[in-house]
Amino acid sequence: MQDIQSGPSLVSMAIDRVGVKNLLHPLIVRDRMQGQQHTVARMDLSVDLPAAFKGTHMSRFLEALGEWTGILDYTSFKHLLWDLTKRLQAKRAHLHFCFPYFLEQKAPVSNSSALMDYQCSLVGNLENGEMEMILGVEVPVMTVCPCSLAICERGAHSQRATVRIATRFSGLLWLEDLIEIGQQAGSSPVHALLKREDEKFVTDMAFNNAAFVEDVVRNAAQKLEHHPQVHGYSVEVESMESIHNHSAYACINTM
Amino acid sequence: MQDIQSGPSLVSMAIDRVGVKNLLHPLIVRDRMQGQQHTVARMDLSVDLPAAFKGTHMSRFLEALGEWTGILDYTSFKHLLWDLTKRLQAKRAHLHFCFPYFLEQKAPVSNSSALMDYQCSLVGNLENGEMEMILGVEVPVMTVCPCSLAICERGAHSQRATVRIATRFSGLLWLEDLIEIGQQAGSSPVHALLKREDEKFVTDMAFNNAAFVEDVVRNAAQKLEHHPQVHGYSVEVESMESIHNHSAYACINTM
Amino acid sequence: MQDIQSGPSLVSMAIDRVGVKNLLHPLIVRDRMQGQQHTVARMDLSVDLPAAFKGTHMSRFLEALGEWTGILDYTSFKHLLWDLTKRLQAKRAHLHFCFPYFLEQKAPVSNSSALMDYQCSLVGNLENGEMEMILGVEVPVMTVCPCSLAICERGAHSQRATVRIATRFSGLLWLEDLIEIGQQAGSSPVHALLKREDEKFVTDMAFNNAAFVEDVVRNAAQKLEHHPQVHGYSVEVESMESIHNHSAYACINTM
Amino acid sequence: MQDIQSGPSLVSMAIDRVGVKNLLHPLIVRDRMQGQQHTVARMDLSVDLPAAFKGTHMSRFLEALGEWTGILDYTSFKHLLWDLTKRLQAKRAHLHFCFPYFLEQKAPVSNSSALMDYQCSLVGNLENGEMEMILGVEVPVMTVCPCSLAICERGAHSQRATVRIATRFSGLLWLEDLIEIGQQAGSSPVHALLKREDEKFVTDMAFNNAAFVEDVVRNAAQKLEHHPQVHGYSVEVESMESIHNHSAYACINTM
Repeated sequence: MQDIQSGPSLVSMAIDRVGVKNLLHPLIVRDRMQGQQHTVARMDLSVDLPAAFKGTHMSRFLEALGEWTGILDYTSFKHLLWDLTKRLQAKRAHLHFCFPYFLEQKAPVSNSSALMDYQCSLVGNLENGEMEMILGVEVPVMTVCPCSLAICERGAHSQRATVRIATRFSGLLWLEDLIEIGQQAGSSPVHALLKREDEKFVTDMAFNNAAFVEDVVRNAAQKLEHHPQVHGYSVEVESMESIHNHSAYACINTM
Repeated sequence: MQDIQSGPSLVSMAIDRVGVKNLLHPLIVRDRMQGQQHTVARMDLSVDLPAAFKGTHMSRFLEALGEWTGILDYTSFKHLLWDLTKRLQAKRAHLHFCFPYFLEQKAPVSNSSALMDYQCSLVGNLENGEMEMILGVEVPVMTVCPCSLAICERGAHSQRATVRIATRFSGLLWLEDLIEIGQQAGSSPVHALLKREDEKFVTDMAFNNAAFVEDVVRNAAQKLEHHPQVHGYSVEVESMESIHNHSAYACINTM
Repeated sequence: MQDIQSGPSLVSMAIDRVGVKNLLHPLIVRDRMQGQQHTVARMDLSVDLPAAFKGTHMSRFLEALGEWTGILDYTSFKHLLWDLTKRLQAKRAHLHFCFPYFLEQKAPVSNSSALMDYQCSLVGNLENGEMEMILGVEVPVMTVCPCSLAICERGAHSQRATVRIATRFSGLLWLEDLIEIGQQAGSSPVHALLKREDEKFVTDMAFNNAAFVEDVVRNAAQKLEHHPQVHGYSVEVESMESIHNHSAYACINTM
Repeated sequence: MQDIQSGPSLVSMAIDRVGVKNLLHPLIVRDRMQGQQHTVARMDLSVDLPAAFKGTHMSRFLEALGEWTGILDYTSFKHLLWDLTKRLQAKRAHLHFCFPYFLEQKAPVSNSSALMDYQCSLVGNLENGEMEMILGVEVPVMTVCPCSLAICERGAHSQRATVRIATRFSGLLWLEDLIEIGQQAGSSPVHALLKREDEKFVTDMAFNNAAFVEDVVRNAAQKLEHHPQVHGYSVEVESMESIHNHSAYACINTM
């Protein structure tokens, strides 16, 4: 059967990335407390393509994924990238995984526990045997508006905000580390389960810790600046203002 | 050229709706203050298909839309439904339009004005010359938690919530009527532009008017119960809780 | 601490559903081949609220979910519904779970296998000890246009379409049953991994089996009509036409 | 009333961008054929914030937008950026507008015309009086698989693909220019309205012009390379494969 893909390209241009996108696949992720957890990832897999070749061989991405261990850690992730370069005779490979990650959180007073989900992502690029990784998390937090608190008689508007962190790093960086940085950057972490005494605690804490999106983005950035394994980061904060129908937004980007 | 669609169907079953979905199209909507406004609608157009025919003629939906006035009012909407039944030799026609609608809102103290957007929808069904319509709006509001307000020392958690109203009605029902019902159902309406004095006013008002999603859904439902043109409704309230990473939800449905 | 929720409501109206929405949670689902599989579900949990009570107790939904087995089958699902009615002193409970479900599919010629994902949903309502369930699947298929095939010189346009099935049922109904009905309704099932010989097989098969959305919806509906456990269904087909920028759509609904 | 925002920041870090996000607003866009057209844009507006200040003044973004002409062209866009730097005493301002843009397209044989929508975006950055702009379009096209065409007996799988182009440019660059580049890069443009004779023409043309995502991305990139006003570009092609449930993807990026 004819192999059209291996034929010559009419337009002689190298392609930065070619592959498959928007694949859903089960994934087992390492978990600091429990060893590992099951989740589902949205995956993009791609390689470069030299100017001389018409096309890549898309089915090999699926074969690589099917034969992969399915358990995400540094070694296995690098192996999958390396395997893609081999199967597709490429110089560079690229992976992008997005998945929800669950952590048991205890309510601050009642100690009731429940699972919180955090959207996480891992991006990897392999070139000349060198892997570059970007680890990302989205952490929901509560923000209480400092301006509103200063001028209002009785309260202050608060809302849910999302802290999005992405980091270049070396060594072992836990998702839990980044999640904690996000949680501590707002007026309060948010919780899945709060009994009445917890709700009081969380709200009182948040009102003692009012923060603009500007404060939240700086709080997170400062911690990332001093984190020994982080070599570059971006932090975005988007706050779904309760008095508006748009978001307040701030970002600091050193990548 | 062969007309496959008009041929017989192998499976003899009538089809409830067949047509085109997810079309984006400019739309001019009637506006109580300014006469009319320009917006963009996502549209679904469909008709029924008797058991005897293999297929409908999809291009005629586009022809009907192209020859339509593009200005949305009772008469033109009914005309488009009627036109679909004629062109497609159908007994029933169905339209679903979704579009953002803009209203100038004045801030309560400074009188500064800015445009607020509301997602609106109009559904129409024509059968035997009778048109049934469902008008819908999504209204963002602020909610202050009554429980949190009762038990906390200094504040109470608040958040943005969405009130979704859908109504069967007779006569002329303005989008503005439904938007007002939504706005008044929460602790406070939300605004696009608030100066500091407005922010104080809105927040103080909201804290004097704490409301659970249960309160919001009942407030809106009660108004709809007594609205002379409304003959059936559903109200959904979804509140993006600032202390949680999920929503609180309530609905009342009489349709 | 004050229990505001148990206080009287100013507006005396019963609420159809009140609860939590848009919760992400790990889920273990029964699997015909492998016993069970791990996935992640988006969940809504709600109960009714009588006119006399101001509010429900939202944290109890999370407590019920946290103490639930997390393994989805008929008995456990009904137990969770029943548990919600107990904890919240409600007459009715409602659950809505949405989750990706994975099946290993073999390519038709090479026998290469890979995981396909199907978005599934399970809705449950409990009232007076009676549970009503609705099981749903979204199945991607390929459609080849019969009209295009009849009039074109060399080919015919094809595209990916989605078959959405929802069913009321009695006894044990496997997701796999509904997925098969969806897959067989189009011109061809779609696959995650196809080698060249498989691609030829699938395409040739699809071109021998050209189908409008009207054909696809009838094919699925006919099978559901005759399925012994199915007592009501809706089938929607949405085809992302390759020659248009909108979808072709058809639905048959007996629910 | 206290101006908390102008107070000192506890964490002394400059913020790259701070402002409002996800605002919906009517927009009038210049149109090569008709002079101008009405649409609706999703907008992000932001400025930089020096390390010394605690916060920006969010309401001023809305004031700037409210006093802006609302008609998008080079001069007005630059004016809005400049106005943001003035009102917020900033060194840099950033705008991101996304909007559907409509073009009347004629069917190739019948000459029937209908509106096609293209998602467009304009990003602007102003610093030291210099404006940098990025113009983007998303163009749906049809792709016929060359491999499938070579090996199958009767047809070949085809599907809708999206070509996403973003460009840095100088002088006047029309959205229409980029849309044409996208349309010509695939096997065929797609249309809103096609009569049977048009469907035959489009399909036959597409089958004479089979293209992988690799071909599409190179076709577009080659034209952008030689466009006199384009100084940097990215092209992404995502093809919703009709035989798979994932996308094929390719990108070339020189920005």
